[in-house]
Amino acid sequence: MEEQLHELYKQYTEDATQEEKNILLTILQGLNKRKSNKQGSYIGGLLNMEKTLNKEICEITIPISPMLNNSLDIVHGGITATLIDSAMGTLANHVLPEEYGAVTTQLNIHYLSVGKGDYLTCKARIDHKGTKTMVMSADVYRCDGKKVAQASGSFFIIGKKV
Amino acid sequence: MEEQLHELYKQYTEDATQEEKNILLTILQGLNKRKSNKQGSYIGGLLNMEKTLNKEICEITIPISPMLNNSLDIVHGGITATLIDSAMGTLANHVLPEEYGAVTTQLNIHYLSVGKGDYLTCKARIDHKGTKTMVMSADVYRCDGKKVAQASGSFFIIGKKV
Amino acid sequence: MEEQLHELYKQYTEDATQEEKNILLTILQGLNKRKSNKQGSYIGGLLNMEKTLNKEICEITIPISPMLNNSLDIVHGGITATLIDSAMGTLANHVLPEEYGAVTTQLNIHYLSVGKGDYLTCKARIDHKGTKTMVMSADVYRCDGKKVAQASGSFFIIGKKV
Amino acid sequence: MEEQLHELYKQYTEDATQEEKNILLTILQGLNKRKSNKQGSYIGGLLNMEKTLNKEICEITIPISPMLNNSLDIVHGGITATLIDSAMGTLANHVLPEEYGAVTTQLNIHYLSVGKGDYLTCKARIDHKGTKTMVMSADVYRCDGKKVAQASGSFFIIGKKV
Repeated sequence: MEEQLHELYKQYTEDATQEEKNILLTILQGLNKRKSNKQGSYIGGLLNMEKTLNKEICEITIPISPMLNNSLDIVHGGITATLIDSAMGTLANHVLPEEYGAVTTQLNIHYLSVGKGDYLTCKARIDHKGTKTMVMSADVYRCDGKKVAQASGSFFIIGKKV
Repeated sequence: MEEQLHELYKQYTEDATQEEKNILLTILQGLNKRKSNKQGSYIGGLLNMEKTLNKEICEITIPISPMLNNSLDIVHGGITATLIDSAMGTLANHVLPEEYGAVTTQLNIHYLSVGKGDYLTCKARIDHKGTKTMVMSADVYRCDGKKVAQASGSFFIIGKKV
Repeated sequence: MEEQLHELYKQYTEDATQEEKNILLTILQGLNKRKSNKQGSYIGGLLNMEKTLNKEICEITIPISPMLNNSLDIVHGGITATLIDSAMGTLANHVLPEEYGAVTTQLNIHYLSVGKGDYLTCKARIDHKGTKTMVMSADVYRCDGKKVAQASGSFFIIGKKV
Repeated sequence: MEEQLHELYKQYTEDATQEEKNILLTILQGLNKRKSNKQGSYIGGLLNMEKTLNKEICEITIPISPMLNNSLDIVHGGITATLIDSAMGTLANHVLPEEYGAVTTQLNIHYLSVGKGDYLTCKARIDHKGTKTMVMSADVYRCDGKKVAQASGSFFIIGKKV
């Protein structure tokens, strides 16, 4: 496998553009962070998520690179959704006792402006905390302060298997 | 930069687990496909999207790997959302005349079952095609046939800058 | 109270237009149906709902009158929502064992065309039936066949107090 | 027609319960308000809506009566939706120049608690105002302060026919 890996690495880097090299750099940095447990998931690593978390708010920031864009060269709506679901889910799980977890059952996103610039920041908060369900909200902003998206989500509270 | 890239590559691969190597392999395969224009976007490459497209349906399949999972070891809701938004957006843009494009304005997803197994398949269709807006639906299935998610989305039709 | 009622009735009918009389007629017909238990709720009576119900589909038709219109003289979005929630809820409760009930937790509606004409028909169906939640879909049509709205909703299954 | 109306009125009031009489009283009061243009629509009259409106917020309060309940004896989700759509729509139209109107294209509602008590109050606000679309939010509260529902909606801005 090492050989196959190295072959693919050579194939990609040999005549890569600067942008293509930058993207592999970002990916490898993210993978290394995941490997050394500085990121809780590969997605967190690949998107270079930086989180701030307390009992009321979860804020996640990711740098924007061409890797995140759709074919119209703006941030893919699915990346914005990933950011939103990560921030909401992290907060929902953070406020629950250890033996419980929260899973997304419904996600509603309004896309308001084009995602571009240096980074995106998502702020999630809790709107409603019941015994079986939670409802969360989130806003996503560009570095110029413009709101890119706003969202609400329903979460179901489940007992974790130990 | 070549040196920095190689350093990061060595750091990751040296004592990587089989899973970690597999993930880098998947990523490099995807990046190479993007580089040779076999994929229209980095996201399409990294997720190894395979598309079938006609005027009525867009179907996209992606293999599931630990790279797509959240910290609960099931497919991240944002990945499912990315799959949905890609399929809907591809179809919306496919049925429009070349000088027009469609951008997502609202996305609503119901998550029904845990995303796991070998792959996920998303089927998007057009529910409503107006002169200024479109409404699309999509269902996401696991390889065992179980429905993972169902979604609806609103798209705004814009004139493309030439 | 009889006197107060009669006073209000006289005040309204004395110099009422034909439209105003028609609306009171519709309302009184609906209230009488409710009173004689031909309708399960006042809302069902006031909207003159006609239901067809089996284990797979609930179809509800209501006549359109100026009573249902907003200030733009088209059917109020809330009336369409009432029709949708009634059809989904009726079906959800119909397929559950007697000791359980279903309550709406989330409702998502895409409004596609103006509500007008002689009547509106809503068809609701079950998309997903879990042990704790259900997801339903519904489409609303005008008498000319045009789709007015499409919707999805989440329901939570609760034990009924006896 | 007067005769038919009177016949229906007699039929309903003759052996009506106190609740049934109260409901007709509420309806006739609302119809009279509509007739004398103190309410802009029949729905506003029938629900006895009281509005407070400025450029930032629209607040609508309605008294709760058995007329608004579903077969589980709690406020019908469609009534809550009607309240939400009215408040959002009133505000959206209020901030637009006279020659423009706003129509709901998408409505998303999370139902959080049972609607009961003396009245419901809905507060709508503007989240995003573009040139072609607007996004609004709304919260609905019971008289005991508990939040019954929260919602977001998309509106399309149209030129009014003169």
